[in-house]
Amino acid sequence: MSDRVTERYAGELPMAEADDAADRVADDAVVLVSGFGSVGYPKALPLALADSGRDLELTVVSGGSVGEEIDTALVEADAIARRYPYQSTPEAREKVNNNEIAFSDRNVSSLGDEVQYGGLVDPDVAIVEAVAVGEDWLIPSTSIGQTPAFVDAAEKLIVEVNHNQPLELQAVHDVYRPDAPPNREPIPLSEPDGRIGDAKVRFDPEKLLAVVETDRPDSTYTFRDPTDDDRAIARNFGSFLAEEMERTPVFEEELYLQFGVGSLGNALMGELIDLDFAGRDVVYFGEVIQDGLLDMLDAGRLECASATTLALTEEGQQRLFEDVEGYAEDIVLRPTDVSNDARLINQFGVVGVNSAIEVDIYGHANSTHVRGSKAINGVGGSGDFNRNSLVSVCALPSTLKGGEISRIVPMSFHVDHTEHDLDVIVTEQGVADLRGTSPVERAEEIIENCAHPSFKPALWEYFEAAKEQGGHIPHDLKRAVEWPN
Amino acid sequence: MSDRVTERYAGELPMAEADDAADRVADDAVVLVSGFGSVGYPKALPLALADSGRDLELTVVSGGSVGEEIDTALVEADAIARRYPYQSTPEAREKVNNNEIAFSDRNVSSLGDEVQYGGLVDPDVAIVEAVAVGEDWLIPSTSIGQTPAFVDAAEKLIVEVNHNQPLELQAVHDVYRPDAPPNREPIPLSEPDGRIGDAKVRFDPEKLLAVVETDRPDSTYTFRDPTDDDRAIARNFGSFLAEEMERTPVFEEELYLQFGVGSLGNALMGELIDLDFAGRDVVYFGEVIQDGLLDMLDAGRLECASATTLALTEEGQQRLFEDVEGYAEDIVLRPTDVSNDARLINQFGVVGVNSAIEVDIYGHANSTHVRGSKAINGVGGSGDFNRNSLVSVCALPSTLKGGEISRIVPMSFHVDHTEHDLDVIVTEQGVADLRGTSPVERAEEIIENCAHPSFKPALWEYFEAAKEQGGHIPHDLKRAVEWPN
Repeated sequence: MSDRVTERYAGELPMAEADDAADRVADDAVVLVSGFGSVGYPKALPLALADSGRDLELTVVSGGSVGEEIDTALVEADAIARRYPYQSTPEAREKVNNNEIAFSDRNVSSLGDEVQYGGLVDPDVAIVEAVAVGEDWLIPSTSIGQTPAFVDAAEKLIVEVNHNQPLELQAVHDVYRPDAPPNREPIPLSEPDGRIGDAKVRFDPEKLLAVVETDRPDSTYTFRDPTDDDRAIARNFGSFLAEEMERTPVFEEELYLQFGVGSLGNALMGELIDLDFAGRDVVYFGEVIQDGLLDMLDAGRLECASATTLALTEEGQQRLFEDVEGYAEDIVLRPTDVSNDARLINQFGVVGVNSAIEVDIYGHANSTHVRGSKAINGVGGSGDFNRNSLVSVCALPSTLKGGEISRIVPMSFHVDHTEHDLDVIVTEQGVADLRGTSPVERAEEIIENCAHPSFKPALWEYFEAAKEQGGHIPHDLKRAVEWPN
Repeated sequence: MSDRVTERYAGELPMAEADDAADRVADDAVVLVSGFGSVGYPKALPLALADSGRDLELTVVSGGSVGEEIDTALVEADAIARRYPYQSTPEAREKVNNNEIAFSDRNVSSLGDEVQYGGLVDPDVAIVEAVAVGEDWLIPSTSIGQTPAFVDAAEKLIVEVNHNQPLELQAVHDVYRPDAPPNREPIPLSEPDGRIGDAKVRFDPEKLLAVVETDRPDSTYTFRDPTDDDRAIARNFGSFLAEEMERTPVFEEELYLQFGVGSLGNALMGELIDLDFAGRDVVYFGEVIQDGLLDMLDAGRLECASATTLALTEEGQQRLFEDVEGYAEDIVLRPTDVSNDARLINQFGVVGVNSAIEVDIYGHANSTHVRGSKAINGVGGSGDFNRNSLVSVCALPSTLKGGEISRIVPMSFHVDHTEHDLDVIVTEQGVADLRGTSPVERAEEIIENCAHPSFKPALWEYFEAAKEQGGHIPHDLKRAVEWPN
């Protein structure tokens, strides 16, 4: 890289203490923060705001999930009045469910446009973690998320330079922000590891309010070890994939995969290491790079990986940090509006694998709200991939709480992914291929192949009773409500 | 046009009677038919199949809605076993709801890929209406729909040349089928009226089984005259649009609009003629060209229109046919995978306006199934535009059946458009702007601004009772089921 940045600071910068910078954020500011996959988010500023003792009513908009300095500390300080588009801490979730934080849950791909052009908010200040900064540019750290759009959209900018994040991270970034509609051009990406930008996010130098220093590490992920169910799901998915590879010329030479964030996604990525891809190049085109993908890369089983964040465990992060430039040959981080772009997912013919809280017998998936009401985290990017993948797979264990509750239910009372979007359901029990099926056929496939044996009788009973009511998607609503999910 | 086609037939063609061609379609064939917006579909072949007296179990896949020769005659002959992705006749609907036809309802944008690469079906024969045909090309008639993908995907091809459709229709066509994934390139369309292909759909000459002649007209649309409610919805939408035009630079010089098919969509297009666009170029980037758009064009209020079908009334069709080449300066028809492409909708910053059967107080819309069960038509392209528009508007009257039933309901029991997709609800009562609102705030907006006064008390009562149950999206499921929708 000829234009490689070797120093963390360039030019005349308005260096400040976090407390002083925090004073410049209004009590009711609309704050756009970097961060996705709980990494790459600002830490010192949010803590300074949380500790300020001020009566804050902030609107906090992130790209995706952020760490405890925001969604725990600021929440506990009662500083967040509004929060978009995702949250993932117990503290934020509680206030969201008590309607003490007004939370709007959005598809992450379009959030940059919604903020900048769509009227979602009127942004005051962007607070962005960086590994380096100049007078009119910054280099993101462990995630890109919606940082380019946020920096463009906000009136002012505060940059946090994190000395704990290696400067070498610049090697993995490919920053490209599409132009404003209606004269936006197609995103010119033809190869998953292609580069259409560089490492720098540019900004109007007049915006730069302060540069703050920190050395706090990311709130990295902790994944559980793969369970027997995870492994059975991975095996079932592997069998399905083996058949798919034979089915269409699209998968003849290359196979593009995406896995959602989380322990199951991580386990699936890890288990794929044993799958026979019969000489095909396997490419990850998704949103998060998790430890399982590093394993695949280290084992030479993965051609390359494109995502918007390095959502690794602490150990995974250390592994990456020790050889960022080596990994950068095969890893590219992009803004979320590129990593999750509908057309790119379509262009590459991605097989998308995402999980859900529950799936109903007609193939509607709920990934955000228990019994239609209680928010968990948010839809994140799962809708982007479920809608636009060539084959969209919903992978989940058939039960939860030690088998007490079925994740296959008569009716999803919250639908994040409609019957028009999902192609295949995989549980540890088996695979339901829903392509070309009517709802009644879908129910038969899903109950027979995916439900846990201990819930099959009750599901069949519901289905038979529902069919008595008639209709294309037979339901007995009163009975559906009585289902103990 | 230098390569303009002046004769309906070119080269050595396997001309056949419809009966003879129908004999070459297997009893259980997977048949891909042209047609979208109930125009441009084959007529003689389906009638010959319906009259054959054979015991047929066809799978019929269209781009969108087709006319009575398919969805009435073939249905009444019990010839259709499976039907994708849309149907819109009373006869088809009845069999779909009795599960005598296995119907799978899909987003129309991705149907071409699902057929050709996604494993939805294993296609045998494409039957395509054309205005002209050669040994390895055809020119579509009044719609393009998914014809290019269908012709590529099917083993065999039967072309119906319709002498009732003017040869001049070639002037409006821009046929571009994206390459196969994963080496698909971005769709190179930068202007809504740009041309990236030509009028011809190419095919492998070995596929051509027969060329049949017909002169049956399309089953054109009949729209009701705009009602007072339609006009009030149009006025409310107009007020909203006037504010939006001031809000963002995206709408400063050009405004891209899309309206869904149907009487309300047609009425909205027609009523916009009176709106003050303050010198902006107004562009239609959508799926259907209806009579209202011709009015806008004739009045010089519309810059241009891009769609996949001319879904006009008989009178509108005559108006167009009398001056196809004149209209072709401002009208382009594209394959549905281009007209409804996610990235193009995004590129142009479209304001999408689609209707629904009902919307719940938290902003989930149902456009396909009454009480979660009874199919009406299908999701069509509404999901494509609701998901990808910069601002997505759901426009509907607040009641149906003369005010007896509220279209604003406590809970949608079928969700086609999730809370993550819709931005604004418009009824004849007013406008609910949902952007940046939490579900509880949404309920307040929707009940207050959009519900009919006669249902407001019951909706407020539901909402208050639901809030007692707590949660981010408060629901009282038992009560929701008792709501008389």
